Amino acid sequence: LNTNFEKEELESHRAVYVGVHVPLGRQSKRRHRHRGHKHHRKRRERGGSDREDGRESPTYDTPSQRVQFILGTEDDDEEHIPHDLFTELDELSFREGSTYEWRETARWLKFEEDVEDGGERWSKPYVATLSLHSLFELRSCILNGTVMLDMRANTIEEIAEMVIDSMVASAQLDEGLRVKVREAMLKRHHHQSEKKLSNRIPLVRSIADIGKKHSDPHLLERNGLLASPQSAPGSLENSKLSECRIISGSRENSTVDFSKVDMNFMRKIPPGAEASNVLVGEVDFLERPIIAFIRLAPAILLTGLTEVPVPTRFLFLLLGPFGKGSQYHEIGRSIATLMTDEIFHDVAYKAKDRNDLLSGIDEFLDQVTVLPPGEWDPKIRIEPPKNVPSQEKRKMPPLPNGLVGASEAEKEVEHHTGPELQRTGRVFGGLVRDVKRKTPFYWSDLRDALSLQCLASILFLYCACMSPVITFGGLLGEATKGNISAIESLFGASLTGVAYSLFAGQPLTILGSTGPVLVFEKILFKFCKDYGLSYLPLRTSIGLWTAFLCLLLVATDASSLVCYITRFTEEAFAALICIIFIYEALEKLFQLGEIYPVNMHSHLDNLTFYTGSWTVWYGEPTCKEFDGVFVGLACGHHGPYIPDVLFWSVILFFTTFFLSAFLKQFKTKRYFPTRVRSTISDFAVFITIMIMVLLDYLVGIPSPKLRVPDRFEPTSSNRGWLISPLGDNPWWTLLAASIPALLCTILIFMDQQITAVIINRKEHRLKKGCGYHLDLLVVAVMLGVCSIMGLPWFVAATVLSISHVNSLKLESGCSAPGEQPKFLGIREQRVTGFMIFFLMGLSVFMTSVLKFIPMPVLYGVFLYMGVSSLKGIQFFDRIKLFGMPAKHQPDLIYLRYVPLWKVHLFTIIQLTCLILLWVIKVSSAAVVFPMMVLALVFVRKLLDFTCFSKRDLSWLDDLMPENKKKKEDDKKKKKKEEEEEEEVQSPFSIEKMPVKINIEDETREKTVDAETSL
Amino acid sequence: LNTNFEKEELESHRAVYVGVHVPLGRQSKRRHRHRGHKHHRKRRERGGSDREDGRESPTYDTPSQRVQFILGTEDDDEEHIPHDLFTELDELSFREGSTYEWRETARWLKFEEDVEDGGERWSKPYVATLSLHSLFELRSCILNGTVMLDMRANTIEEIAEMVIDSMVASAQLDEGLRVKVREAMLKRHHHQSEKKLSNRIPLVRSIADIGKKHSDPHLLERNGLLASPQSAPGSLENSKLSECRIISGSRENSTVDFSKVDMNFMRKIPPGAEASNVLVGEVDFLERPIIAFIRLAPAILLTGLTEVPVPTRFLFLLLGPFGKGSQYHEIGRSIATLMTDEIFHDVAYKAKDRNDLLSGIDEFLDQVTVLPPGEWDPKIRIEPPKNVPSQEKRKMPPLPNGLVGASEAEKEVEHHTGPELQRTGRVFGGLVRDVKRKTPFYWSDLRDALSLQCLASILFLYCACMSPVITFGGLLGEATKGNISAIESLFGASLTGVAYSLFAGQPLTILGSTGPVLVFEKILFKFCKDYGLSYLPLRTSIGLWTAFLCLLLVATDASSLVCYITRFTEEAFAALICIIFIYEALEKLFQLGEIYPVNMHSHLDNLTFYTGSWTVWYGEPTCKEFDGVFVGLACGHHGPYIPDVLFWSVILFFTTFFLSAFLKQFKTKRYFPTRVRSTISDFAVFITIMIMVLLDYLVGIPSPKLRVPDRFEPTSSNRGWLISPLGDNPWWTLLAASIPALLCTILIFMDQQITAVIINRKEHRLKKGCGYHLDLLVVAVMLGVCSIMGLPWFVAATVLSISHVNSLKLESGCSAPGEQPKFLGIREQRVTGFMIFFLMGLSVFMTSVLKFIPMPVLYGVFLYMGVSSLKGIQFFDRIKLFGMPAKHQPDLIYLRYVPLWKVHLFTIIQLTCLILLWVIKVSSAAVVFPMMVLALVFVRKLLDFTCFSKRDLSWLDDLMPENKKKKEDDKKKKKKEEEEEEEVQSPFSIEKMPVKINIEDETREKTVDAETSL
Repeated sequence: LNTNFEKEELESHRAVYVGVHVPLGRQSKRRHRHRGHKHHRKRRERGGSDREDGRESPTYDTPSQRVQFILGTEDDDEEHIPHDLFTELDELSFREGSTYEWRETARWLKFEEDVEDGGERWSKPYVATLSLHSLFELRSCILNGTVMLDMRANTIEEIAEMVIDSMVASAQLDEGLRVKVREAMLKRHHHQSEKKLSNRIPLVRSIADIGKKHSDPHLLERNGLLASPQSAPGSLENSKLSECRIISGSRENSTVDFSKVDMNFMRKIPPGAEASNVLVGEVDFLERPIIAFIRLAPAILLTGLTEVPVPTRFLFLLLGPFGKGSQYHEIGRSIATLMTDEIFHDVAYKAKDRNDLLSGIDEFLDQVTVLPPGEWDPKIRIEPPKNVPSQEKRKMPPLPNGLVGASEAEKEVEHHTGPELQRTGRVFGGLVRDVKRKTPFYWSDLRDALSLQCLASILFLYCACMSPVITFGGLLGEATKGNISAIESLFGASLTGVAYSLFAGQPLTILGSTGPVLVFEKILFKFCKDYGLSYLPLRTSIGLWTAFLCLLLVATDASSLVCYITRFTEEAFAALICIIFIYEALEKLFQLGEIYPVNMHSHLDNLTFYTGSWTVWYGEPTCKEFDGVFVGLACGHHGPYIPDVLFWSVILFFTTFFLSAFLKQFKTKRYFPTRVRSTISDFAVFITIMIMVLLDYLVGIPSPKLRVPDRFEPTSSNRGWLISPLGDNPWWTLLAASIPALLCTILIFMDQQITAVIINRKEHRLKKGCGYHLDLLVVAVMLGVCSIMGLPWFVAATVLSISHVNSLKLESGCSAPGEQPKFLGIREQRVTGFMIFFLMGLSVFMTSVLKFIPMPVLYGVFLYMGVSSLKGIQFFDRIKLFGMPAKHQPDLIYLRYVPLWKVHLFTIIQLTCLILLWVIKVSSAAVVFPMMVLALVFVRKLLDFTCFSKRDLSWLDDLMPENKKKKEDDKKKKKKEEEEEEEVQSPFSIEKMPVKINIEDETREKTVDAETSL
Repeated sequence: LNTNFEKEELESHRAVYVGVHVPLGRQSKRRHRHRGHKHHRKRRERGGSDREDGRESPTYDTPSQRVQFILGTEDDDEEHIPHDLFTELDELSFREGSTYEWRETARWLKFEEDVEDGGERWSKPYVATLSLHSLFELRSCILNGTVMLDMRANTIEEIAEMVIDSMVASAQLDEGLRVKVREAMLKRHHHQSEKKLSNRIPLVRSIADIGKKHSDPHLLERNGLLASPQSAPGSLENSKLSECRIISGSRENSTVDFSKVDMNFMRKIPPGAEASNVLVGEVDFLERPIIAFIRLAPAILLTGLTEVPVPTRFLFLLLGPFGKGSQYHEIGRSIATLMTDEIFHDVAYKAKDRNDLLSGIDEFLDQVTVLPPGEWDPKIRIEPPKNVPSQEKRKMPPLPNGLVGASEAEKEVEHHTGPELQRTGRVFGGLVRDVKRKTPFYWSDLRDALSLQCLASILFLYCACMSPVITFGGLLGEATKGNISAIESLFGASLTGVAYSLFAGQPLTILGSTGPVLVFEKILFKFCKDYGLSYLPLRTSIGLWTAFLCLLLVATDASSLVCYITRFTEEAFAALICIIFIYEALEKLFQLGEIYPVNMHSHLDNLTFYTGSWTVWYGEPTCKEFDGVFVGLACGHHGPYIPDVLFWSVILFFTTFFLSAFLKQFKTKRYFPTRVRSTISDFAVFITIMIMVLLDYLVGIPSPKLRVPDRFEPTSSNRGWLISPLGDNPWWTLLAASIPALLCTILIFMDQQITAVIINRKEHRLKKGCGYHLDLLVVAVMLGVCSIMGLPWFVAATVLSISHVNSLKLESGCSAPGEQPKFLGIREQRVTGFMIFFLMGLSVFMTSVLKFIPMPVLYGVFLYMGVSSLKGIQFFDRIKLFGMPAKHQPDLIYLRYVPLWKVHLFTIIQLTCLILLWVIKVSSAAVVFPMMVLALVFVRKLLDFTCFSKRDLSWLDDLMPENKKKKEDDKKKKKKEEEEEEEVQSPFSIEKMPVKINIEDETREKTVDAETSL
């Protein structure tokens, strides 16, 4: 016996060696390379299938190649098609003296979960940290133990019988121990989910757990497992699991006892999954361990064996003498982790013999990451990482020199020049494409809105949009002496918004009123007054011209120019808009200080004869008389002194801000079940507004409130809802209007498209495509309509749009325990936009409700929107770097590749642009602001010719599109360089690094997926 | 050549096998055990030295045993004594075409730091994740390459010559390539710290970096390296590094160019460290790789080779053909990581031949942790863990069955019954011991205060203590009709505090006024009034009796009873005090709402005839007349209406709270250098108070301010500074006073000692010991003094004391880059306490400054203190668990071992106690509160007899001390059980788990250090 064992050991050396050692010698290397190339060529020629190779060449250099060969074979029989696996580790334990039972101690779907034995609970899922030692022991187990593939058995008893027969035959086991081993194998199984009434008093449960359902027959149906005695096995034959037969386990009858199944966990198991059961234990009758690895064909449902009712495919059994329990446990964990491994799992399904399994282990070993003992505590449970690299590359032979890399890198470079933005060369060609692209999604644009999140988004943005629209209307009313005011603003916004969300290419964009438009109207009004022209008709003709010019831009596919807007421009613009938002929120708060001044330094005299400046706030100045005691000097611009309002407003403002932020990030807290948390997070702003309104109402301080017009009629009695473009102006004004319209067109185009670019950003992972041409068309048409009706003009509003997108973020529910939720994209639909503006239109009838909303609360919401929109901007991360010593800087990917001084220089340039833009924006030249944004594009272009290399810019920014010819030149040059490099073989070249963008929650980080072609 | 190589490979299999494979077979196991025992016995007999064994038994079962043998040998020569190692990885690269140079790409002190080549910066230190593949390649390198131990060489040229000779001799290298290899080896070395003037424009540096010193000759002196041409080498001979000779490198002269040395990094290198240089690279002239591992004896300073001027001990060289650069890089990282490993590092110093090194590698492999490829992304840089397990156990053979475990576990159980609390049986025996224990630390108690942190602590606690002392004085004044008021309170606190901090056993405790004392004084005053007795004399006699009784308690070592106060009691008490603190802070804020009511619902009428309740606030009711317009109805209890004050106070209050909390945790932010951050963090509360005072001054709202008495004289003119214990009371009052004094004694004893227990908690890692008896003595004496002088009594104040301790926390600066700062203990000294109370005494002369401090700011500080003191209380962590679904619960160690329902039950019991205490505290029976705390001890004792097992309680609480006899019984029982267990060998027994307490920053978590004796 002993010599036999040692002989096997000797063979094991050979295998271990092949497994993990690649000789450095020259010969071997060449052979390897050669094979790789040839292999690859074959694959290509035959369309990726290596099957024809058959087993013609059974000797492979590396286990990796052997594994690739095993996985390449396509068996005809269904039994070797890999399924998802649920792995369970059961250990032999004893209760009350000597009665043994198998007790579940760990389980795997993707990550390991342990039974905390003392705590009678599941641990958090964690990355299974194994010891190399036990992996090698496992290898020796597979090498020396019984391996039985495609065993046909119906019950656990049959399996036990066959395994023991085989063991006795191979002299692994003494005939005399047969009964004892059988007995041990057939002991009942105890699972963590089963209630131990004796041990566990369910007296005190977490409040958070109350109300959870603990059984869900629907789920079991999904897995085709509601096979109680009522339904005959035959009825299952059409289901996916037809090969699975429900067969009674050892000591229980054929009904699956659903009371014992943890339904929450069952939900995580993918349909069609099979089980692999790992059984390890110490017994007193054995003198050396016995090992068996069994693959069943077909998989059978062994009731009572597995925690969840899924059919068992694999069984690993290890029984050994006492004293090495922890060693066996580690071996059990090792095989379970292997079974969870994507590649070994496939190998296990397809293995033809023991050697295939060994190759699988060796290939696995070749891929593991090792943590040195002195730098890591193996007892630390590592949280599952956010992303795990795809294991697909292990299935395929390495490609020759960076082929995949190049194609991926190219994709990156062409980020902006996708099909949506290519010039068609035809009139309205881009528009036609946009319509064609978006039409198929129209139905889903409605259907996808069926979610609570959308309701949250509607409520949030309705509140957020109301205030700027009304404020803007008020300011416009002041600027145009009541010609266009709050009600026109409300009506126009609603009309344009509804039309835009129904027909635009990117309905996620939210329209709003922007500063430059206001400035333009002001100038125009002054001009008209100075030269005795009629304001409204002139405005209408300019508007119609602008609409026409915009249509021209649509016709000429001018929107395709947005590909020149890189991250540099985007971020500078977005940052500026966010800062303006924050600034205005704070400014409005300070303005309250002028209206409701504080009684400083206890000058109580002021109480009697104070004359504050009650400035026009909501367009329609109102003067309310209070209970009679104090009346200000002049009603309209001076009001009574109302104490406490300012500080109360400050409290409302900041509480709103912090409460929104707190509730928004409630999703990542530990309290309450996931659904409750995400609902709170979605409704964060709305809940905050509700709480603050209630608080304000209870305290009763007369804080300024939102005042919505309550009648639907033009502000000025001099005008109707239709304005003639000529009016009483001379005829030539119709033509002359084209000149200001030009300016206006640039203004509209830039404001609209840059916001659209930000919304269509790649990291938002939009699936329904963009539609810049269609967007512009809708804006142009509605601009015309608004002009004729004498309503203000509306274009895309950056911060509101970003807030809209952020409120519709979609994350995957975690499938396997421990898997991190992934950002999936945005809930792209048209309903939220529509509802926001539809509600806005109805606001006229809701004044009785809306008048309870205090303005400071809305300002607080603005502050929140501004700050939260800033978060995703890399530019701000880079500004933060100025304050950090190098060693504390976060591991941002561009810092690895671009020297710090260059990063700082880039930031400073951007910051300078931002400051210049700010100066222009607040100066009287605000109308030219959109053109200055255009200038940013040129500044960025200039950077190409400074100390920034293309590589630097690709990390810090996107690359600018270049002439086609130049591009081809570059390609040629690159090819040439590559060829040269192949000769020179620079050790530090990076040509093999495909650059990939990974979208993290809110920041975009590039991660390098270096293809190491060892 | 080829056959030779393959032969070596074959040998390698054998070694690999020995390295990582432990056969499961029975024979082998027995042998192993046997050897282990024998080995151990030998070690013990000979006092731990195995040297006599010599090399008599060169065959060992496992590499682990071999390594233990290698490390056990004690060489006489100094050259094999392990030093600290700095490891540097240099790779051959080329600049401008073909000019090669060695370029530093990574370095190790403990964790790996990489040069981010593109970023021209050091990465964050991280755990070196290696691939198993490259570790095996490294093994093969050592096996097949040149190994030269104890080479004597003076220059890099000599080394190169000798290495090449050896390679040529062993036919590893062709004679013809000699020159080229030599040339490659002697290329110059470029280090990351060297300024590349051409590539690096130091134009933009982080603001945070400005002001840092970049050279520090003092440091170099420490390492004995200021060996410029001025000082002859001879002068170094007496230094620790006498064996290190400074010898010129290849292309540079003998002066160390300090401008190139990164002084910040140099500071981290321990004195006496040596370097190990790893050189790997691709060259065009080789067809197969050449490898050399060299140990120099003595170590020599090869200028220019290493980044920092430390002598080189080890050299690893790997040169190979082009195309495998990344493979070589990984091998280089592997050997560097090995050299950083504590055990391999020692092996490398002591190795006699190649096989020793191979055993070292194998032992290392046996200890590594493995991460499966599908669950981890090897590109993730793992942050260094907070704690790394000691590697010492790898040096020693495993001990027989849990010997170490038991002793450690016992230590845990005896936590409370340290020598400080053992009854001496002699009168004043405990006190004498306390004095003996504390006296040697007296000088260091003064010296250790020399730190900015102490100043911060003084300023913070001075502000924090002032307000309660004065408020308490005010309330006492109200209660005693001015007999004892603010000035007496201030004087008494100062006097007692100064004496306590100078002479007490635990000067970290801060004395203050507590609620029960106030209630007691109130009752006494009422009693005196009702029965026509003189209050002050009766109070004095009670005080003297109390002092006497306390002295009795000191004499009888009564304080040793505090060992019955377990965590259960501690936490319930501390939690209650914290909650009271928070409650009172908020209550005072709301009280402001009564004094300064808000003008609700715009009842402007109120402005003219409002009558608020201007309650007594600072002891001395003051009525200020404002500028004349409004005067309240009755001066003294009704004041004028001052608008805005309430909301301003609310703003001050919450801003103070949030700003303090923000600044306090500024330490963990990324901005600014560490020193700035920790200073900000230390001064957090003081900075906050300064900012808020300034803000309040600027806004000018007449918020309530801190009013300190400005004259030093008794409040009441009827009394002096000395009170007779008899006065005009009948003589029997002197004796009758002993009855209330009993109550008072319990009150003082409990309040004092439970706070002392909390301060002396084990997780504070106090090094100077406690002194319960001495504490009580000082309190008793000062109680007597205060009584005679008619001042209030002061005992330990829980929240202030905790805040004091928290403000003096000491953390280690990280030594090696990446090592986490460790909590070292508390800055134990007497100066902060002294200064706080000394300043308090001087406050009478600082009223002109103190009057600017608004009360709401101080209330905010209270809120902060209450909340931050709650943080460290496990009880609150457990309460939080109620709101969390099981899967979201943090991985608290007790949850692994105690079922959730038991944890919840324990929490509920504690919560019930807390609520009962609260009811007592706020009811009129507040005087009995301290006795109720005593009741907690009994409640805890009762838990021993419920469903909580001893094991459960050891996780949730401390164990209660038991009778000595019972303990011995237990020991016997345990021993018996152990013996039984040895027979039965339960696989899931936990007897081998020594329980160890690991003190994390603020929470104490137990970690299980399971001794796996595989």
